[in-house]
Amino acid sequence: MPRAESSSHEVTSTAIEIYPGLGVWRVSLKPAWGEPTGSPVTSSSHRALPPAREALAEMVPVAEPPIPLAAITGRLAQRGILVEIPLGSTEEVYGLGLQLKSLRQTGKKKTLRVNSDPIADTGDSHAPVPFYISTAGYGVLVDTTRYASFYFASHKAPAPHSQPPAEAGDWKPAYIATNTEDLYRTKRVSSFVQVEVPFESAVDIFVFAGPTMLDAVRRYNLYSGGGALPPLWGLGIWYRAFGKFNQREVLGLASELRAARMPCDVLGLEPGWQTKAYSCSYLWNSGSFPDPDAMIAELRRQHFEINLWEHAFVHPTSPIFDALRPVSGDLAVWKGLVPDFTLSVARDVFAGYHCKAFVEKDITGFKLDECDHSDFIASPWSFPEHSAFPGGLDGEEMHSLFGNLYARTMWNIFRERNFRTYSEVRSGHAFAAPLPFVLYSDLYDQRDFLRGVINSGFSGQLWSPEVRQCASEEDLIRRLQMVVLSPQALINAWMVPMPPWRQFDGEKNRAGELMPGWEALEGQARAVLELRMQLVPYLYSSFAQYHFCGTPVCRALVLDDPDDLANGMIDDQYVLGPHLLVAPIMTGQTTRRVYLPRGNAWILFSNKDFNTSQGAMRYEGGQWIDFEAPGLNALPVFVRENTLLPLAEALPFVGREPRFKLTIQVYGNAPADFKLYCDDGLSYDFENGASYNWLALSWRKETGLTSRLTIAGRPPPREDLYEIVGAEVVA
Amino acid sequence: MPRAESSSHEVTSTAIEIYPGLGVWRVSLKPAWGEPTGSPVTSSSHRALPPAREALAEMVPVAEPPIPLAAITGRLAQRGILVEIPLGSTEEVYGLGLQLKSLRQTGKKKTLRVNSDPIADTGDSHAPVPFYISTAGYGVLVDTTRYASFYFASHKAPAPHSQPPAEAGDWKPAYIATNTEDLYRTKRVSSFVQVEVPFESAVDIFVFAGPTMLDAVRRYNLYSGGGALPPLWGLGIWYRAFGKFNQREVLGLASELRAARMPCDVLGLEPGWQTKAYSCSYLWNSGSFPDPDAMIAELRRQHFEINLWEHAFVHPTSPIFDALRPVSGDLAVWKGLVPDFTLSVARDVFAGYHCKAFVEKDITGFKLDECDHSDFIASPWSFPEHSAFPGGLDGEEMHSLFGNLYARTMWNIFRERNFRTYSEVRSGHAFAAPLPFVLYSDLYDQRDFLRGVINSGFSGQLWSPEVRQCASEEDLIRRLQMVVLSPQALINAWMVPMPPWRQFDGEKNRAGELMPGWEALEGQARAVLELRMQLVPYLYSSFAQYHFCGTPVCRALVLDDPDDLANGMIDDQYVLGPHLLVAPIMTGQTTRRVYLPRGNAWILFSNKDFNTSQGAMRYEGGQWIDFEAPGLNALPVFVRENTLLPLAEALPFVGREPRFKLTIQVYGNAPADFKLYCDDGLSYDFENGASYNWLALSWRKETGLTSRLTIAGRPPPREDLYEIVGAEVVA
Repeated sequence: MPRAESSSHEVTSTAIEIYPGLGVWRVSLKPAWGEPTGSPVTSSSHRALPPAREALAEMVPVAEPPIPLAAITGRLAQRGILVEIPLGSTEEVYGLGLQLKSLRQTGKKKTLRVNSDPIADTGDSHAPVPFYISTAGYGVLVDTTRYASFYFASHKAPAPHSQPPAEAGDWKPAYIATNTEDLYRTKRVSSFVQVEVPFESAVDIFVFAGPTMLDAVRRYNLYSGGGALPPLWGLGIWYRAFGKFNQREVLGLASELRAARMPCDVLGLEPGWQTKAYSCSYLWNSGSFPDPDAMIAELRRQHFEINLWEHAFVHPTSPIFDALRPVSGDLAVWKGLVPDFTLSVARDVFAGYHCKAFVEKDITGFKLDECDHSDFIASPWSFPEHSAFPGGLDGEEMHSLFGNLYARTMWNIFRERNFRTYSEVRSGHAFAAPLPFVLYSDLYDQRDFLRGVINSGFSGQLWSPEVRQCASEEDLIRRLQMVVLSPQALINAWMVPMPPWRQFDGEKNRAGELMPGWEALEGQARAVLELRMQLVPYLYSSFAQYHFCGTPVCRALVLDDPDDLANGMIDDQYVLGPHLLVAPIMTGQTTRRVYLPRGNAWILFSNKDFNTSQGAMRYEGGQWIDFEAPGLNALPVFVRENTLLPLAEALPFVGREPRFKLTIQVYGNAPADFKLYCDDGLSYDFENGASYNWLALSWRKETGLTSRLTIAGRPPPREDLYEIVGAEVVA
Repeated sequence: MPRAESSSHEVTSTAIEIYPGLGVWRVSLKPAWGEPTGSPVTSSSHRALPPAREALAEMVPVAEPPIPLAAITGRLAQRGILVEIPLGSTEEVYGLGLQLKSLRQTGKKKTLRVNSDPIADTGDSHAPVPFYISTAGYGVLVDTTRYASFYFASHKAPAPHSQPPAEAGDWKPAYIATNTEDLYRTKRVSSFVQVEVPFESAVDIFVFAGPTMLDAVRRYNLYSGGGALPPLWGLGIWYRAFGKFNQREVLGLASELRAARMPCDVLGLEPGWQTKAYSCSYLWNSGSFPDPDAMIAELRRQHFEINLWEHAFVHPTSPIFDALRPVSGDLAVWKGLVPDFTLSVARDVFAGYHCKAFVEKDITGFKLDECDHSDFIASPWSFPEHSAFPGGLDGEEMHSLFGNLYARTMWNIFRERNFRTYSEVRSGHAFAAPLPFVLYSDLYDQRDFLRGVINSGFSGQLWSPEVRQCASEEDLIRRLQMVVLSPQALINAWMVPMPPWRQFDGEKNRAGELMPGWEALEGQARAVLELRMQLVPYLYSSFAQYHFCGTPVCRALVLDDPDDLANGMIDDQYVLGPHLLVAPIMTGQTTRRVYLPRGNAWILFSNKDFNTSQGAMRYEGGQWIDFEAPGLNALPVFVRENTLLPLAEALPFVGREPRFKLTIQVYGNAPADFKLYCDDGLSYDFENGASYNWLALSWRKETGLTSRLTIAGRPPPREDLYEIVGAEVVA
């Protein structure tokens, strides 16, 4: 049995505190003798930004690691390194990136494979992240680009000795859960997490302190470089045009949206703009788009930003093919090159071309499609895991990094021009928090999309539950309601020429058949889009918190209060920004069970269009309610009691120089101050610390509304950004 | 970039012909310098039987390998060894073991992971086999127990240089297939198969010659040791009793089946017979089964064989726990041991106990459950891939082998007693053809189950599309029709106390509520079971062909004639034995599209109960027909023209000393001889070559039926096995 012997080595463990007192440690596991096989390719070595050390320094200082670092151990085998990390018996774990199929991971196994078709709860994801967070208030990142397998207390060694035989007749048939309490009960077997990292003999583990669970996520996000801050226009409405549209039709759509007063900031073009799309030429198809410059100018005149669909697989007719050929992988995707973005040559060629051809011409964003992986389908595409890249990575490592590397390459074009982008990307991995790229998916299950909103917040990700085809008018409105309460309000109408609110049925839409009574549906849709436009300042301030403090914009309830045990299993509600609790209604629901977390009371949100009939409904926290939704304007969004909620007058677009007229809704008798974030909304000047400010709003019954800048002596670059019209006492 | 360098080594390739002229070659790929990492754990080194060399010698001799062996190459990387095998541009590939989700594999990727929940077409399977067959008439086995990934012509290198830019406007949107012809069209990209074997630096490839595709499968099966030959009673009806039944209730069921004249040979007991079942104690639960010996005696008196459910995970209260503890894996399953069946100590303890406790007491078979793997569920069970076993295997290698090793351990008990078993097992791998263990699954999709019947024939496997719960009377009958035309006619009623034909609705069944008019349904069910009983001699002879010639009992149409291109995509019909074409009707179908392969005409099967109204329908081969099935007795089974089909009088059980009264159905004017296999039906004496014979049946219009033993001067041990009553000219 020579294999048994050769497969058990000792592993040394070295722990260091990365910055004294800032609550981040690294434990390096290595073979006790000999060198590691190769040098592991990590996400941390391909990060987009350095750690936001100053922001970390503003958190609660931490003296001791949250778990005993010496208890993190490794074991080598032919298959890789097996890491063991302690897990307390009452802890529950969450995270692992964009998991669409489940929330809580305790007791389970997950393998973090990059895949665009996660149809089962295996860990497959567009954007897996080897990072988990414990309810005990700490986070653990296994810094690997391998498809690592996590076993959360699911296995342990057998008993050393037999037990006395069972009494006759004491066998009981396997228990079948018949209620959710049992269904969700954690099947915990051991008191450790096992992580298997295949093919490697060394790995680094990062441990992020709390003290709270949310603090652990904040530290992770700040250590990643801080959360992304989109341009203000990025928080408006996005609309992707029909894939077959030509230049004239795109311009027609744009005018129509404006004429119909449907808010819109970003128009996206789908594959048809290129001469070759699978793989990509990155050349305007002059047959359909004879004068792109003129089209861009006209769209800009109407205050649209323009986003171009593409992917990174380079067609042989592309002008950058020959320059990229030597710095690409050994296997083609749709006959196209796979550029190795770990190499500066590849990044420079790709970014240089895109800058000159598009960004300099006022294209302000891209949709980076197909950068994940789809292998187990009838015609698998993307590069296999065994692909070899000139920079030394194999296909597995490259798959984990590809979305991040691609997004970083594109982001740098904009950073160098000091002009923010907000874009889309279909894959991601660890340390992605600073990237202003929103994840999305071709999958379309409404519950999965909602779970995506919630889970993405654990791991420094942004996710859009985009609206595409619709099964009914109700389906359109309910999906719109969810997407406007997400990081990116995206309507992806690539399959239909008319907006879905004029005809939700795809076939009839393509046949040019307007729906009878479409005006009413368009009106309902407009109300939903205007809700988004009203919330832009609130959302922008939430994103600023994400950037400066690492606080995710959309969060699972458990993250805000893991000790409220009901929160732990809720995968269909989330917290949006500091004060809103969102419980999206799924198509077909007329009653919605909602949990209102303990700690404060909650008041039903209402504006001119939603929840208008109920009046100010107030609920104590710590209870389940059945929210009745007889009509589509019933919207279970709840505001934390004692909140000042800034609502803007809905603009038709945010644009590059918005002026928001704010009405401050007052929920509760003794509202806390609200901090509105102010900057130019366009540049990266906020990064140098001198060009932003916070406008603190206060309200007292006696004195009414007052406001002040919190950073004294520093006016924001756009003093006219907010005009405060008045307060509206809701409850 | 040190990793790129270190990850590309040269690999040496050594080809040998295993037996001169017998059409089996082995190509060994190894690192050109240095030793391989560990020694790869192979299926071939844990085979159940040695190759059936004499049977191979009776096939067409082969001079040259079917593919150029020097073109099989390897490449090393940190992740393992990548094998490249040529594939002709018109070849299509099939196989890979028990694939439930697809038939043809060309253009696809499959990873052969052992898993009991294959919900997508990824390669996950209870019983994956790294063996594929080409329509060009050869087979390739990659002899590994790793979860190898197969890429069938799905990827190739990019073009070396750019191409001139596309004409403006020549972009076309992605084509969406809207008909099956396009849907099934192979998306072939390259002219090679890539196989990645993770964690290994060496691997052996076996190549099996044809000349035909079926010959390649035969050579594989014979090289595996020849196909399994069940005891005659194993081909009767199997019935697994309700899981909560006690001894009295089991005996009640047995009497009831006999009283109702429902044929049955094997009664199976589910987990309730043990004191502990998850994990297993292997101790009779004397509370429910106070006198197992008496129960067995009574069941045997009624000619039932008894099959016991179990799995291999050993509960601490089991009498074999302490003896197995040192020869078990490092992680428990349901708190039980995982015995390392690669070690003779573990096999001896396990088999020794089972022999004494059960087999010596006339238990004649076992259902070896849970020996696959289920990891990506809420509570994963089974051992992780990173488990370590004392024999040196890790969990991945053990998962691939576990079903085979477990089955072999149990089979040897019976071989040593020279008494055949026919049993069940839920996992398997390569070289499993000789094991008389039938695969099954908890999955229950009717189409998948049908695909299992078809695909299992590519790789030396047996599969039962067992009948469990039923959605309707029709569903019960249609599922019964499929299972009686499969290797094992199993009704698994573990969830219901009454037979499903008395109440198909599970809830009402458990409530003891007889269905109104159940007598009619029971009659219909009896007719289906009796069809099986009529076919036992035909099936037994087909199994003998499987044993002696390697010909699978159930086969995809493509295997018999890959040049009939329509056969290549048919995954809902199969050939049963030499002459029957089976096209099971799915629940809900009233018309069934059937392809009748070219080469001969086909005549609709009929007996006293099925297809009675149509008369002898004859169809030319090489056409599609729409088979009308207005009633449940319409059964699209077609007999090859010019076949003599032996039909037995339906017995209530086969038992240990059957006498079959045969009526020979004559299909066509000039039928070929039919060879009926004869032996004692019980022992392994047929293996020594002196105790079996073939009875050749002939029929001429002028002379009628004649018969003769083909091995002159050797009478079969049971001369009274068959009594030929007469001939019935059907068409």
